[in-house]
Amino acid sequence: MDKHLETFISENAPLIDAEMNRLIVSEKAPRSLKESMLYSVNAGGKRIRPLLVLAVLTDFEKTSDDAFKVACAAELIHTYSLIHDDLPCMDDDDFRRGKPTNHRVYGEATAVLAGDALQTRAFGILASLENARPEQVIKLIALLADASGANGMVGGQILDMEGETASLSLEELEEVHVHKTGALLSFCIEAGGILCDASEEEMTQLRNYARNIGLAFQIKDDILDVTSTTEQLGKTANSDAASDKSTYPSLLGIDGAQQQLDKYHLDAIESLGFLKKETSMLKLFADYIVQRNA
Amino acid sequence: MDKHLETFISENAPLIDAEMNRLIVSEKAPRSLKESMLYSVNAGGKRIRPLLVLAVLTDFEKTSDDAFKVACAAELIHTYSLIHDDLPCMDDDDFRRGKPTNHRVYGEATAVLAGDALQTRAFGILASLENARPEQVIKLIALLADASGANGMVGGQILDMEGETASLSLEELEEVHVHKTGALLSFCIEAGGILCDASEEEMTQLRNYARNIGLAFQIKDDILDVTSTTEQLGKTANSDAASDKSTYPSLLGIDGAQQQLDKYHLDAIESLGFLKKETSMLKLFADYIVQRNA
Repeated sequence: MDKHLETFISENAPLIDAEMNRLIVSEKAPRSLKESMLYSVNAGGKRIRPLLVLAVLTDFEKTSDDAFKVACAAELIHTYSLIHDDLPCMDDDDFRRGKPTNHRVYGEATAVLAGDALQTRAFGILASLENARPEQVIKLIALLADASGANGMVGGQILDMEGETASLSLEELEEVHVHKTGALLSFCIEAGGILCDASEEEMTQLRNYARNIGLAFQIKDDILDVTSTTEQLGKTANSDAASDKSTYPSLLGIDGAQQQLDKYHLDAIESLGFLKKETSMLKLFADYIVQRNA
Repeated sequence: MDKHLETFISENAPLIDAEMNRLIVSEKAPRSLKESMLYSVNAGGKRIRPLLVLAVLTDFEKTSDDAFKVACAAELIHTYSLIHDDLPCMDDDDFRRGKPTNHRVYGEATAVLAGDALQTRAFGILASLENARPEQVIKLIALLADASGANGMVGGQILDMEGETASLSLEELEEVHVHKTGALLSFCIEAGGILCDASEEEMTQLRNYARNIGLAFQIKDDILDVTSTTEQLGKTANSDAASDKSTYPSLLGIDGAQQQLDKYHLDAIESLGFLKKETSMLKLFADYIVQRNA
């Protein structure tokens, strides 16, 4: 990994973790519910989403006391979606990132409710921002609702489920990922832009970047699923092939998927041209997403 | 039922239904997800929560083009909570209001996601209000997050589940209900107050009213569970006794519960004194809550 990015991550990831914990611990809640929420918040993860929010601010050379809260709100939405995705009625996963899934530890009912409460908390956090202007706050909330709801992440999860029993075209596969993972990644990038008062033109470029890294992220995930071991991934490898799921490698072959990945990578970097920076943190993230091993 | 209240309900409930449908139909979403969301939105219900929002405006003699949206947001939160409550891992209910529950029709996975998306939509709707001032919008969102999350409705659901395996004191039982059903009812009343620019003093009285009708509502539910038939209720009667659950009648006897109900009813009406109105819609609602047969 690039040294600048490594420093950026090692400096900010612990701050994100601390802030997320603070934001959950500070809420009044029954002990078992709070424990279950904190368990999944602290179950690891690369924190790519919140780091991307902060990366936008770095590239715009801006600071905002609210950026960490916005970053955490996005990660809490991601966390809630993982808890619900892992449920027996959904993916029925016993482990995630090497640890027992939330419902394996706290039971299904508490897991459902912990996910519910994490979603609620994300919106509550945005409504409690102290430095952003009211118009910015409302824009962030509207954007998060759109990105994470029926027309975003949750809709993508439905499409993904329905895709499991059908053979998808490349276009349909992309539709799944644009919603299931892309929408929330886009929120992170756009949210950074909103906090930086990016111009409409800059926002368009940021959205373009986000779309491309979102798809790149998914293709890389699909490739890693085929080429890595369970130990390397921290989750079951070859799970897609085992479930006969449509993926980029299954539709395009490994080489074709790699070419598609390279294209999205390039397009992502090109859309950052407006930054006119020698080292862009968002560029380093794009590089990392396509080069990572897990 | 009082004639004024009957007219108020028969005029407004269809408008609430229409607006809720519009707010879901207008969202882009996979068809199966949207169907599942609409199924529960249209599965009946007394619409007490949204009607209470409108009742506050009536009593303050104010109108707001946003009131219906705020009312619908509250009802969507209520609807999502019912879908999740009915899941096999929670209450495992096959029927609600005489109709098969969401997961019985659409499967558990879609039911979980429909609930998730309804919650998201509620916050998205509040973020899209067009007439309220930005500060009012943010206050409404913060309030809804607090009322429906870990320190509100979801927390109450956890307390309720934990209470099922324990014998609760009257204080603990009240704690369950203040959170599980009271918090969202309070949101509705307070939200009406926010839209009407109620003073701090008026908000205190409205909160007091809300707390009292919330508890009254629950005691009445408990009493009806014992004294009504399944047919009258549209849901399984005597379910509390069958599950050995702590309720007001089980702790106080039917007469004791009725006395407690009368006390909350009286306190609710007293807190409306500031309205200085001959006929208050909120008073009529308080009367209805304690006198209803289902």
